[in-house]
Amino acid sequence: MALYVQKFGGTSVGSVERIKAVAEKVKTFRNQGHQVVVVVSAMSGETNRLIQLASEINDDPTPREMDMLVSTGEQVTISLLAMALQKTGVPATSYTGAQVGILTDSAHTKARIQRIETDELRQDLDNGKVVVVAGFQGVDDDGNITTLGRGGSDTTGVALAAALNADECQIYTDVDGVYTTDPRVCSRARRLDSITVEEMLEMASSGSKVLQIRAVEFAGKYKVPLRVLSSFAEGQGTLIVADDQEDERNMEEPLISGIAFNTNEAKLTVLNTPDVPGVASKILGPIADANIEVDMIVQNVAPAGDYTDFTFTVSKADYRQTKRILEESIVPSLGGGEVRGDDQIAKVSLVGVGMRSHAGVASRMFRVLADEGINIRMVSTSEIKISVVIDEKFMELAVRALHTAFGLDREDVNEET
Amino acid sequence: MALYVQKFGGTSVGSVERIKAVAEKVKTFRNQGHQVVVVVSAMSGETNRLIQLASEINDDPTPREMDMLVSTGEQVTISLLAMALQKTGVPATSYTGAQVGILTDSAHTKARIQRIETDELRQDLDNGKVVVVAGFQGVDDDGNITTLGRGGSDTTGVALAAALNADECQIYTDVDGVYTTDPRVCSRARRLDSITVEEMLEMASSGSKVLQIRAVEFAGKYKVPLRVLSSFAEGQGTLIVADDQEDERNMEEPLISGIAFNTNEAKLTVLNTPDVPGVASKILGPIADANIEVDMIVQNVAPAGDYTDFTFTVSKADYRQTKRILEESIVPSLGGGEVRGDDQIAKVSLVGVGMRSHAGVASRMFRVLADEGINIRMVSTSEIKISVVIDEKFMELAVRALHTAFGLDREDVNEET
Repeated sequence: MALYVQKFGGTSVGSVERIKAVAEKVKTFRNQGHQVVVVVSAMSGETNRLIQLASEINDDPTPREMDMLVSTGEQVTISLLAMALQKTGVPATSYTGAQVGILTDSAHTKARIQRIETDELRQDLDNGKVVVVAGFQGVDDDGNITTLGRGGSDTTGVALAAALNADECQIYTDVDGVYTTDPRVCSRARRLDSITVEEMLEMASSGSKVLQIRAVEFAGKYKVPLRVLSSFAEGQGTLIVADDQEDERNMEEPLISGIAFNTNEAKLTVLNTPDVPGVASKILGPIADANIEVDMIVQNVAPAGDYTDFTFTVSKADYRQTKRILEESIVPSLGGGEVRGDDQIAKVSLVGVGMRSHAGVASRMFRVLADEGINIRMVSTSEIKISVVIDEKFMELAVRALHTAFGLDREDVNEET
Repeated sequence: MALYVQKFGGTSVGSVERIKAVAEKVKTFRNQGHQVVVVVSAMSGETNRLIQLASEINDDPTPREMDMLVSTGEQVTISLLAMALQKTGVPATSYTGAQVGILTDSAHTKARIQRIETDELRQDLDNGKVVVVAGFQGVDDDGNITTLGRGGSDTTGVALAAALNADECQIYTDVDGVYTTDPRVCSRARRLDSITVEEMLEMASSGSKVLQIRAVEFAGKYKVPLRVLSSFAEGQGTLIVADDQEDERNMEEPLISGIAFNTNEAKLTVLNTPDVPGVASKILGPIADANIEVDMIVQNVAPAGDYTDFTFTVSKADYRQTKRILEESIVPSLGGGEVRGDDQIAKVSLVGVGMRSHAGVASRMFRVLADEGINIRMVSTSEIKISVVIDEKFMELAVRALHTAFGLDREDVNEET
């Protein structure tokens, strides 16, 4: 007998029929003798509906009232799922975040979990009940309802699994696992049986949307075995293993686990910056002050002269504002220079713990791209990731070429473009 | 400075525009220097939408899960109203029933309030805040969300007013007060400036839908001044005064305060029942066992013989089932007899504390009806009410004739039919 925490997202509970399907899936596990805690999100579309209502009333409501409002979304789902389970003959009880005792700080709309009371849950489980918990929400010390921010239901699932010392936290989504890259871009993409937490984090921060970064971090920190699988199809999904378990994986695994990419960023370059200490902070300080997040940063080593080029990327949404800040205040105060920007770029990242022990991944990556005639605009590396910025129009070509070159293609797919 | 509890029903908060209008109304009171606690229902249609969702999943869900589900309706409204108040510059905080500490028993879907914690509310009020509380809901000792049953928001309002010792509980509805009778049936109906709790109870139980009976009872028990007024129009509405304040009313007030009526009932008569002790309970026992509620009961005194006729009314919805029970089990076991039924009836009731000290109301009522050629099928009386059952088709005629005969007509209306 195992204890599973199963989390179902908004699409998986998006209609009466899908809620019934989730109940059947949970029932199957329970009938195999397992204990099950289910965490659910709001039905898809519901959170947006509520936010829309609020926006028609007040364009700047207090975060406390926003949390009061949107937390109703999950409360609807937990009661409906408990009813669906009861209908199939499975005893079930639902709990809001506050009821289950998911205690958070008071940072409304982005609260962090501080501790979870599990006594009542355990008692219900020991009495043969399935427990249904509202994801995404908690309660602070003063009894105010808080939310963990968008996607926080994954975090609720992992945190509950950690608190209950569950055997596995299963995240059911609309994809059947983690892929070597996005199958919509590369038809030869392959589902991974497993991936390490570290790789998953790099994949997520590089554009793969399967899991919330916070949930993966949480799973890594508390050593919660985490599995991503499909709500709609059978299959084993992808197991996300703690980093120290990586050795157990097949030695024949390729160097690279996956290729992530995104086109959400724009690149800005300040040309001819004086190459003196403090320049980077002079450039980035006012940008951080404007609450603009910077992703990649590259500063070329100054050649003979005293000037250098400073390049960084920001979210496309922040592109115009960043350019204005650079042109109007930063560059003049640095004494001249020129700002160049490009928002037609893509970032493509190779991710894999195998890189640690194998040299030459970067040079092989650059050669593959060169062979396809793709110019590299920026490079940044971490211990298990290499990211390049290229022209947006080459993105699909780059992903497919790298996917094949690094041995990630499915074996059962014939050559296609 | 006064403390008002203001309750707004589902129609009054049925859209973004109406929520904004409620915020403006509340703001006006607050700007006059008053403290205001607002109690709101779910937006109109929302509770039915949720019940519909549940019914598609489980035709017999546990009451606990139903309460979990439908209580989200008010939670949405309180947060939206708090946001609307904040937008107009009024500091406001919303509370669910559980948060405010409305402690109830555990009778899910029809819980009764046991006590209310008011410390936090008072603190907010003293800090200049408007407090917005979810009507209709509470929490039991184990932390389960409970609901007070349909219309329970009125009860929440009155109970909060009692607990806070408020100066007045104002119930805002889609009508501008309590009328002598339904203006849709009798155009000469007149709004009452005041009515006693006892009269209001008789009116409500006889078909007038303005207020929930429980809320009125609560107001009477705890001497809470209760006022019914319109969300949409200006006006003083109708003040419902405690019974011992009735003497303060104008001595020129007519004998009768109002005429209530309904067509929701059906009448059943068991003819030729043996006139022996225990017959009534033999007839009504199995009907109560089937959870059918009986309203009026009339048993004629047996004439010379040993047989009598036993007549009672039930809800029209229970008519067929009641007739079947009578015919299949009760009547045969009583040794014969015959069952006659009629579901084309109306009940018309005169209500007024003035009746107590004035004889002859009944005979005057019967004469008015006789003059219109209306046959009386049943009569039952209480200290301040006389109800008659007549053929449904005569209902409007009876109401209008009685309204005029007992001096209830508005003075500014010309004679019409």
